Amino acid sequence: MSTSSRFDYNKTNDRAIINGEMKRQRQRSGASQPPASATPKRSRQRLRGLKTRRAILRKAVNLASLEGLEGLTIGRLASTLGISKSGLFAHFGSKEDLQCAIVDEAREVFIEKVVRPAHRFRGLGRLRILCENWLSYGKKRVFPGGCFFSAASLEFDDRPGRVRDQIVELMKQWLENLEQAARDAKAAGEIRREVDVRQLAFEIQALAMGANWSSRLFRDPGAFRSAGTAIFQRIEQAKEPMQPRK
Amino acid sequence: MSTSSRFDYNKTNDRAIINGEMKRQRQRSGASQPPASATPKRSRQRLRGLKTRRAILRKAVNLASLEGLEGLTIGRLASTLGISKSGLFAHFGSKEDLQCAIVDEAREVFIEKVVRPAHRFRGLGRLRILCENWLSYGKKRVFPGGCFFSAASLEFDDRPGRVRDQIVELMKQWLENLEQAARDAKAAGEIRREVDVRQLAFEIQALAMGANWSSRLFRDPGAFRSAGTAIFQRIEQAKEPMQPRK
Repeated sequence: MSTSSRFDYNKTNDRAIINGEMKRQRQRSGASQPPASATPKRSRQRLRGLKTRRAILRKAVNLASLEGLEGLTIGRLASTLGISKSGLFAHFGSKEDLQCAIVDEAREVFIEKVVRPAHRFRGLGRLRILCENWLSYGKKRVFPGGCFFSAASLEFDDRPGRVRDQIVELMKQWLENLEQAARDAKAAGEIRREVDVRQLAFEIQALAMGANWSSRLFRDPGAFRSAGTAIFQRIEQAKEPMQPRK
Repeated sequence: MSTSSRFDYNKTNDRAIINGEMKRQRQRSGASQPPASATPKRSRQRLRGLKTRRAILRKAVNLASLEGLEGLTIGRLASTLGISKSGLFAHFGSKEDLQCAIVDEAREVFIEKVVRPAHRFRGLGRLRILCENWLSYGKKRVFPGGCFFSAASLEFDDRPGRVRDQIVELMKQWLENLEQAARDAKAAGEIRREVDVRQLAFEIQALAMGANWSSRLFRDPGAFRSAGTAIFQRIEQAKEPMQPRK
């Protein structure tokens, strides 16, 4: 998996994302290197094509967050966007290509809203900011249908293929972000040495997704507050010695 | 909502489920009361029809747990079961009727595996057994695609209509089961008076669904153990005085 397709906060910036996107586009078109004979005109055309592609994907990811990824055919997207199917086929060769590109777009939004702003913090500070950003991303409905990855995970858990593989890798990477922040916090003496960072990351993710579930299903305005209470209580407990059981 | 369509552990037994099912069938066929002239032969026919319907629904609910509820058309189900579409239409008048009947079938399985066995316990005991049964139901993959309701909730959260309404009511009822057990535990002095039973139920449900997510997406055999650790730690903490924060 290439660096630019991961939830990676250390190596990701806007340039890397765009470079990664252009590299993937070249790979899809069968050219492993940019052609040496590329003229400025062709570069402008490519940039325009790239912008169109991104604009399509921004709308597609919002639609997929509402209606699911599997139901979003090229025909359905073309009719929603009011463009021709053949025009969409020029950008995405197959339904699977389109789905993978949508997951990639959702990843970039997630990095922008949740991961990158935590980059300048470390250890416990980063862990807290990652959690705060996730809750804010869910509450503000960055995607109109709620957390894209919560829905896509459950939609594709029994559909083997490239889309599922991509979702699995991104979710692993996100959990690894939480775990690494907790490991750094442990190394810095901010949380107890015996804290199981994998368990902590699992609980944070479960509670955050639970808020998304409750918010979307019950239209519950307090869902993210409930999850925040639970998550930050968990983090506080990681700082303190365990209380003996009665 | 009728008693027989709820996650209700006090009034539900096999007879009530079957009576409820027959009552709903009569309502669908437009007869509010059983016809006074029903002959034994007609009763046998109805019972046979009911058995066929249940057998179809058991397979449909398993298929829906793998592929989603929305993708399961009458045509798709007919071809999978090797029966005629017209035969299925005789049982379910529309796709929405079929989806509602599948949700109802999943509810009955859930009651049988999770809710009913906790009936003979009360308070803290019932709360623990409900959690244990949920984790066992998830781990044993009672539905081949994992928890039916976790997937259906996220699939239908943006699809207004009867199916969504039914899922919302069942999920509220399930959370109410957990809350009521916690309230009874509080009244019996088994957990602290200041415990927020709504928050506790939210956390239990989020952690259990998180286990389902991790198990299905990562094929993680330890997911239900992680959730169990977190859930039973939460319940233990509800029994103990809060530790002062550092």
